[in-house]
Amino acid sequence: MHIVIVGLGLIGGSLAKAFTKYTDCHVAGIDSDPATVEAALACGAITKEGDNDDLRQADIVYLCLYPQADIDFVRAHLSAFGKHTVLTDVCGIKTKVCHGLCALAKEGGFVYCGAHPMAGTEKHGFSASRADMFKGASYILVPCSAPEPVQELLRQTAFQLGFGRSVSTTPEHHDQLIAFTSQLPHALACAYVMSPCCPEHRGFSAGSYRDVSRVANINEVMWAELFLDNQTALTGELNTLIKNLSDIRDAVADGDQKRLEALLRRGRLIKEELGE
Amino acid sequence: MHIVIVGLGLIGGSLAKAFTKYTDCHVAGIDSDPATVEAALACGAITKEGDNDDLRQADIVYLCLYPQADIDFVRAHLSAFGKHTVLTDVCGIKTKVCHGLCALAKEGGFVYCGAHPMAGTEKHGFSASRADMFKGASYILVPCSAPEPVQELLRQTAFQLGFGRSVSTTPEHHDQLIAFTSQLPHALACAYVMSPCCPEHRGFSAGSYRDVSRVANINEVMWAELFLDNQTALTGELNTLIKNLSDIRDAVADGDQKRLEALLRRGRLIKEELGE
Repeated sequence: MHIVIVGLGLIGGSLAKAFTKYTDCHVAGIDSDPATVEAALACGAITKEGDNDDLRQADIVYLCLYPQADIDFVRAHLSAFGKHTVLTDVCGIKTKVCHGLCALAKEGGFVYCGAHPMAGTEKHGFSASRADMFKGASYILVPCSAPEPVQELLRQTAFQLGFGRSVSTTPEHHDQLIAFTSQLPHALACAYVMSPCCPEHRGFSAGSYRDVSRVANINEVMWAELFLDNQTALTGELNTLIKNLSDIRDAVADGDQKRLEALLRRGRLIKEELGE
Repeated sequence: MHIVIVGLGLIGGSLAKAFTKYTDCHVAGIDSDPATVEAALACGAITKEGDNDDLRQADIVYLCLYPQADIDFVRAHLSAFGKHTVLTDVCGIKTKVCHGLCALAKEGGFVYCGAHPMAGTEKHGFSASRADMFKGASYILVPCSAPEPVQELLRQTAFQLGFGRSVSTTPEHHDQLIAFTSQLPHALACAYVMSPCCPEHRGFSAGSYRDVSRVANINEVMWAELFLDNQTALTGELNTLIKNLSDIRDAVADGDQKRLEALLRRGRLIKEELGE
């Protein structure tokens, strides 16, 4: 297959490396930064720098830019896409992106199927990308109106790249769950390290500090865009968390041991029920 | 050396296993649950079940019960402790415990030096204990008025058990930092999993969900006691976190990209400054 990857950051770079390591696909890469393209060529992650000919020939194009930049890229290259090409993306929010890209795909006469690889680290950019980034991870498909064979192509390709499972859902349901599973922990990490105690933590911290603070090392431009593209769901999750934290704070401040135990027990039972 | 470990739970059990694996100390263990003592004897973690003779002979006694139970145990066995014995503990809060145990040690004519091994997992009890629990961890000493040779004995013993560093501080400073580094993440994990989205997370989550929710699997009786013994500091940290989360929530709800980026950038810069 001919693959084009647009944007060779953490996820795009990891896709390129995984395609090169685990498949015999031809991988062309596009990035606005010439040094990134050079680095990707030098380490063999891509076969060549992608151009309009590659877009025309591509079996699958993976958009790996920020949400609005993905839409802008497709609009700017609409006539270059081949009619047989499957367009997909890796964005962390889906309602806005799927809406924009579905409309453009219809206009361009090719198929779009949204996706979100549930993988990443707290590091950014091509230099942090890895071929084994997706090992065992979940590949979320947001098919919109993509035909089943297209979904199956993306799913089977994902398994070749190391993904361990795949789920399918609507853009709205995706964004609701992602507000909780991914956006909220990132907001939380930043809020957490703002405590005046944080700079003194060394020697007084262990796993629980490390885990909560890990993703504070955030790419604030990308995440601010992702947060605002999912404003309603994320505001709701933040309100829920603030409410639940306030309940615990009140029980602590009131010295109410029974109420505090009941709140913590509720957390434990939810976690236990999930078998984790 | 003769060691007595009082309470063979996660930390006490791990201390017993580490002493047996990494030193040639004689290790006696005390636990109110006969099945736990039997398990510890069966796997060789302790040499014998501890009694008053062991307390009298002990070079170091490690109290590994809950805060109030540690104090109650020492009061009940005050006449059994030898005059040369060093008494220490592993409690996650220190102001109340150090105050109580310092007074009892003075009364009994032996030396007390508080400590807090910064190690643990989200699991509980002897069955989850491990000899390598303390590998690389920080051993916090809260000496109160313990003489330097006693502090040095505990520190050197900790390094034999695998600890990687040691810091010393006052009970009050310890409790302020621990409210942030340890108690807050535990409160947070419970508050986080209370979101109605949580039971649906599978397939839609990755590292950041896992990290924030990990310690929700809490021992609510122990943690409620630890929280309430550190009421002021923890209430303060919860208020700080709620305030910082509310700032992010407001920026998201207002759709204010510049303010949101500035808040997330603040988190990133704090984390970067720490070199993490």
